[in-house]
Amino acid sequence: MEEYNRKDTICALATGVGMGAIAIIRTSGIKAFSICNKIFSKNIKNVKSHSIHFGILKKEEEVIDEVLISFFKKPNSFTGEDMFEISCHGSVFIQKQILQLLTENGARIAKPGEFTLRAFINGKMDLSQAEAVADLITSESKKAHQIAINQMRGGFSNDLKILREQLINFASLIELELDFSEEDVEFANREQFNQLLLLIKKKLTKLIDSFQLGNVIKNGIPVAILGAPNVGKSTLLNVLVNEDRAIVSEVAGTTRDTIEDVINIKDIQFRFIDTAGLRDTKDTIEKIGIRKALEKAEKAEVVIYLLDATTNIEAQEKEILKIKKLQEKLIVVVNKTDLNPDIYTTLKEKNYLFISAKNKDRIEGLKKAIIKSIDTNLSSDETIISNSRHQEELSNTLKEIIAVIDGLNDGISSDLLAINIKQALYHLGLITGEVTNNDLLGNIFNRFCIGK
Amino acid sequence: MEEYNRKDTICALATGVGMGAIAIIRTSGIKAFSICNKIFSKNIKNVKSHSIHFGILKKEEEVIDEVLISFFKKPNSFTGEDMFEISCHGSVFIQKQILQLLTENGARIAKPGEFTLRAFINGKMDLSQAEAVADLITSESKKAHQIAINQMRGGFSNDLKILREQLINFASLIELELDFSEEDVEFANREQFNQLLLLIKKKLTKLIDSFQLGNVIKNGIPVAILGAPNVGKSTLLNVLVNEDRAIVSEVAGTTRDTIEDVINIKDIQFRFIDTAGLRDTKDTIEKIGIRKALEKAEKAEVVIYLLDATTNIEAQEKEILKIKKLQEKLIVVVNKTDLNPDIYTTLKEKNYLFISAKNKDRIEGLKKAIIKSIDTNLSSDETIISNSRHQEELSNTLKEIIAVIDGLNDGISSDLLAINIKQALYHLGLITGEVTNNDLLGNIFNRFCIGK
Repeated sequence: MEEYNRKDTICALATGVGMGAIAIIRTSGIKAFSICNKIFSKNIKNVKSHSIHFGILKKEEEVIDEVLISFFKKPNSFTGEDMFEISCHGSVFIQKQILQLLTENGARIAKPGEFTLRAFINGKMDLSQAEAVADLITSESKKAHQIAINQMRGGFSNDLKILREQLINFASLIELELDFSEEDVEFANREQFNQLLLLIKKKLTKLIDSFQLGNVIKNGIPVAILGAPNVGKSTLLNVLVNEDRAIVSEVAGTTRDTIEDVINIKDIQFRFIDTAGLRDTKDTIEKIGIRKALEKAEKAEVVIYLLDATTNIEAQEKEILKIKKLQEKLIVVVNKTDLNPDIYTTLKEKNYLFISAKNKDRIEGLKKAIIKSIDTNLSSDETIISNSRHQEELSNTLKEIIAVIDGLNDGISSDLLAINIKQALYHLGLITGEVTNNDLLGNIFNRFCIGK
Repeated sequence: MEEYNRKDTICALATGVGMGAIAIIRTSGIKAFSICNKIFSKNIKNVKSHSIHFGILKKEEEVIDEVLISFFKKPNSFTGEDMFEISCHGSVFIQKQILQLLTENGARIAKPGEFTLRAFINGKMDLSQAEAVADLITSESKKAHQIAINQMRGGFSNDLKILREQLINFASLIELELDFSEEDVEFANREQFNQLLLLIKKKLTKLIDSFQLGNVIKNGIPVAILGAPNVGKSTLLNVLVNEDRAIVSEVAGTTRDTIEDVINIKDIQFRFIDTAGLRDTKDTIEKIGIRKALEKAEKAEVVIYLLDATTNIEAQEKEILKIKKLQEKLIVVVNKTDLNPDIYTTLKEKNYLFISAKNKDRIEGLKKAIIKSIDTNLSSDETIISNSRHQEELSNTLKEIIAVIDGLNDGISSDLLAINIKQALYHLGLITGEVTNNDLLGNIFNRFCIGK
């Protein structure tokens, strides 16, 4: 791996970019402690692992900062190498000075994810756990966080380990048959093998199917807002966004960068999609907009159809009937009830929700309805995968397993079965990193932020 | 101090706002360790100060994160109280969850600067050192950083301590005289006292005078760019800004928020001020713009006067003569040399600089000239103050010292001199915090960021 020279000692800012009260700069590698010795006022020869020391960072005679340094000795560190972390005053200027000091003394700036890559290479975690670290850092809702932390702590890896062991076990019996092939002995019980393969197939299918849910949890469950022009779609979106912002900043005392229309409701992240207003039109451009709105709605998990209480309801309801495909995921909501309170009586037979987005009236009820419309899927305690690479490799594994099952039924010879089993093991191994290659690692760790 | 209840255990995010590889959340106070015990998987009863422990943060049965916790036992911590710092995965979601966990278990979110306030109250640093912590975090150039770090490490405090001790020493002699006033004895040698006062006066004056420099270093040395319309003022500014940006991002691998026109040149921060083009005009609005440009130039420490090599130079030079007040700080620069190379010959007698802002030609020479025009002030190793509160209290002290000097000359009685000396000591005490009050502390620590 030319790109990631493991003999280098690497350093990077590990905390968020910009000014803070403090910042953490981490260094890992063979030369870590000798570099530290050159720049730190305290003699660190006999420091213990997991101990913290106060002192001064100096560049020749110039004081860069008063700092705390935490020491981690191999193999008991995140990377498995000798590591130290400098806790400095959080100015951007000091961060820069310290990184310069480290690079001048023999470290180099780490590439994205390089600390975690080393943790993987040194056997501190498998590949799917390493990937979970990146997911954990970017997770923005409770559910996404739970999936990532479960994966990081080895939940998914354990599932795979069991599958692999069962397959390897059987593969060795098949190999044995090959060795004795001239004697026409069957060491492997075909019926028992078939049972096992069906079990593995079931487990794989379950994991693969969980991806659809895992993926939307990770990236936000898409919710489209449909309705005629001027029914209040944008107002509703703003109300939902602002409530979410207020909650976040209240607790953490921080502002944060959020993509405009991503909103947490009851620990789940939703990605709200505002659409062009729907109406009968002869205008070609507008027709395209409406077609796109409907396409988005088809891809969404939930569709809110907004009606305007102040205009002809029946005409609007007719439009709903036109989108039959979406009926299952539709929540019909009547807006602007403040301007027409009679609407409750008029539509009391209908199973609609009533809100006033402008007055923030009954928004809580709408949120509950959104959660309810998807919550049957979320009650499960099973492993959920959220990584498209894992889904792909699980699908590849499944393909091989199905080939083995078919082969067994067709009475295909052991040596051909062995090839499919090996392929299945190969694809499983790619997930956890028992099998790996540079391109794969590059793709995975480039997604990381620097300093992790 | 109602606002800052010292019995509370406080917590806050200490690292920069937003997502990072890791984040640090610190907790300080009487209940710190008992709170930690409730949420951390490891028994911390016997942990040593300055040691780091790996474990899991839990909210009932739910895993919030795998973390490292650093422990600091009183009085050997930043605040002087029991403290622990959680190093967690840097997602905003996790930061928020952990802060919530801490507050649910008895901590409260810290106010800005409250950790440093406690460090001051517990005698870990004096007030001027605490103020330097805030300056250090916001310092963006080497010089500003040096002033702040020198002040944080007690350089300025030592200067004041010496002044105070000398004054206290003399004050006690004067007090003695008062006790024996009926016997008309003079314990204090008036001549010796006068010498001391003149020395103190000199030292105070020097410190007060250093503020002008300290202030511009802290906030950026103002440089105005003057010249006729379309001589290339904005192009020059862009070239300078972009070069600075490139250097920063290359080293730290980070982006940062910078105020548009603040630029580091050779470790010093400059605040460049683009101005309206100067020309003779009858337009009233334009006249106002030009008057404002000249006002800005008057307040600047350096003025760059830009000439256009492609238009009538003599006409432009006449304009320079009109601003006689600015001559001392003027650097005359001829721009657009790429379009008129003959200009070097034409103007060879003049002491001008020649650049092409568009081609980034000879910009380095201009930078050197800017540095040179201010560097006589910057070579000194003396203490430089950069805090307006310190300047004010030093001036108040000086006023009292002058009153004592005048009083001595006029043969005023000891009891009146004692009043002025006490006032001088009072004002010095306000700087280091020997004398203090709630309003003062509130004003100072409110400027801090949360988590420090």
